[in-house]
Amino acid sequence: MEISELGEFGLIKHLTKDIKPVNKSTIKGVGDDCAVMQYAEGKRVLMTTDMLMEGVHFDLQYTPMKHLGYKSAIVNISDIIAMNGNPTQMVVSIAIGKRFKVEDLEDFYAGLQLACENYHVDLVGGDTTSSMTGLAISITCLGEAAPEDIVMRNGAKVNDLVCVSGDLGAAYMGLQLLEREKAVFNEQYREAKQKGQDIEPAQPDFSGREYLLERILKPQARQDIIQRLKEAGIRPTSMMDISDGLSSEMMHICEQSGVGCRLYEEKIPLDYQTAATAEEFNMNVTTCAMNGGEDYELLFTVPLTDNEVVSKIEDVKVIGYITAETEGKKLICRDGSEFDLKAQGWNPLKGNE
Amino acid sequence: MEISELGEFGLIKHLTKDIKPVNKSTIKGVGDDCAVMQYAEGKRVLMTTDMLMEGVHFDLQYTPMKHLGYKSAIVNISDIIAMNGNPTQMVVSIAIGKRFKVEDLEDFYAGLQLACENYHVDLVGGDTTSSMTGLAISITCLGEAAPEDIVMRNGAKVNDLVCVSGDLGAAYMGLQLLEREKAVFNEQYREAKQKGQDIEPAQPDFSGREYLLERILKPQARQDIIQRLKEAGIRPTSMMDISDGLSSEMMHICEQSGVGCRLYEEKIPLDYQTAATAEEFNMNVTTCAMNGGEDYELLFTVPLTDNEVVSKIEDVKVIGYITAETEGKKLICRDGSEFDLKAQGWNPLKGNE
Repeated sequence: MEISELGEFGLIKHLTKDIKPVNKSTIKGVGDDCAVMQYAEGKRVLMTTDMLMEGVHFDLQYTPMKHLGYKSAIVNISDIIAMNGNPTQMVVSIAIGKRFKVEDLEDFYAGLQLACENYHVDLVGGDTTSSMTGLAISITCLGEAAPEDIVMRNGAKVNDLVCVSGDLGAAYMGLQLLEREKAVFNEQYREAKQKGQDIEPAQPDFSGREYLLERILKPQARQDIIQRLKEAGIRPTSMMDISDGLSSEMMHICEQSGVGCRLYEEKIPLDYQTAATAEEFNMNVTTCAMNGGEDYELLFTVPLTDNEVVSKIEDVKVIGYITAETEGKKLICRDGSEFDLKAQGWNPLKGNE
Repeated sequence: MEISELGEFGLIKHLTKDIKPVNKSTIKGVGDDCAVMQYAEGKRVLMTTDMLMEGVHFDLQYTPMKHLGYKSAIVNISDIIAMNGNPTQMVVSIAIGKRFKVEDLEDFYAGLQLACENYHVDLVGGDTTSSMTGLAISITCLGEAAPEDIVMRNGAKVNDLVCVSGDLGAAYMGLQLLEREKAVFNEQYREAKQKGQDIEPAQPDFSGREYLLERILKPQARQDIIQRLKEAGIRPTSMMDISDGLSSEMMHICEQSGVGCRLYEEKIPLDYQTAATAEEFNMNVTTCAMNGGEDYELLFTVPLTDNEVVSKIEDVKVIGYITAETEGKKLICRDGSEFDLKAQGWNPLKGNE
């Protein structure tokens, strides 16, 4: 169905008709100049925002709209969780070109709403407009937390342990796989066109690599880790989510906390598929884990005294410790050599990328 | 200066270095995964978001970046005010192409911060990223209000008076002026290029039309009207800001309140420049006021008993009254003829626009 058949207001009504708020703090959702919230007494409000641009943050050639909606929500939800908060409301703006149909937006919203359901977030408003060019998505997410629960980036102390959840580098290797298949398909398409032939849609064989694709196309926010830490009685001294790569995020924590660190290459958690695929691509798997980004795992520090407890938490690994600022920010490799961390994280504004 | 010289994090630091929160509710601004707010006990939180796309919502050929920053903030602040709320925090996302310099972003932020200063709003975060194509801006604004102060669109009652602030149609006529000069300049440029000549930048004569240009390039949010209503002891029964045109907004209020209305053409407030320019362009000035949009004036209803008080408020006009839903939504023209209101408001998603 063409979007012009519904018009802006009709489209918004159509896309938001099934949305039912689940949070007590949501007083009024979609449909007025503003959404209205009322938070429990004494609670603080967290706010984060992320913009996703076609051709920069996603490629529609291999990103289904439903996955895009899901991921757009997750990258924001993950920021709330990285403050040790509870995500509660979300507004979404989307600018679309003429090539999109109502069904595309239905898919996008289906993904968005699935993420909202999984994390108990209410979609309370947004803006739907047109773009002369590519697809643009902007989401702002609100959350709540008791003041004493909020964890910033600036609280890491000397001797604290550095921990990460899950494993790293998988999203980056998933992206490499998709980019390779895209290049193959485009080449076949070009050749077929030259010969005046039709081409069958490529059916690349990703078997055994499903985990990597899931990591790049349908990431999760680690609310489960926050929950486990709470149950174990651990309050991290600093925390953030890993969107730009471990190296870059670790540097943020060190700089904002005024400390240094020593991370151990051998401790960095890797999935088997990540390691095998890195080898196939002739890439250094540690580099992928340090600089790949988009894993949305949690990076956090805990007091040394929590060592025994944190080591027992499922899916959490201690990868190093915090040092004095003068000791620098170091990665210790398997052979004992030391390197300074570098913020080679994913940076779309750099001229050379 | 090239943006790549600073990088993403350097750029954000550079642009946000002078930002100092002024609201008590702002606990932590730019610099972590989230901004952190704590609102006074019992207060409700309002949230609105708007996306502005190059080529759809603004044309950089005649929109200075500073004005664009100012206006981007205002369109959001206006939504908070239209709920009878107090704007407090803002996050801004901007996606930029390679043709932009650091100075362009400085100008954009200067406009944004000027609007924030004027309306006492704290800029607490955002996202700065790259775009493969045009400039994209997304802003989310938070505000606060006591529960009893919040005015929705759905509270208009039969016999309520319909009021508007300021005057209407001026922003639309300002846009027509700018579009005409752009067409003239582009034609001169094309001709000069054909002849291999250089062309001086056009210096169009807008004297006597300054008000129209200000309305389209540097709109204001009517916080002063909210203040005057409060001082006069009037609480509107429904309210919204006029971004898509009076006709479209009046229909929203009627539909959400389950009522009809009668508006009088002769009562619609117009500026002299608007009327004179509409005549020059051979346009019906009432059509411009009803459907032009982007005026960011307030449209609201008050109980009939407030007639005397509201009529004395500076810059507020009573333009009609609310009727039963079955009476329809009518515009009564100067000659006594009646027309149904139509939502011909600015709708970028319509196929025919």
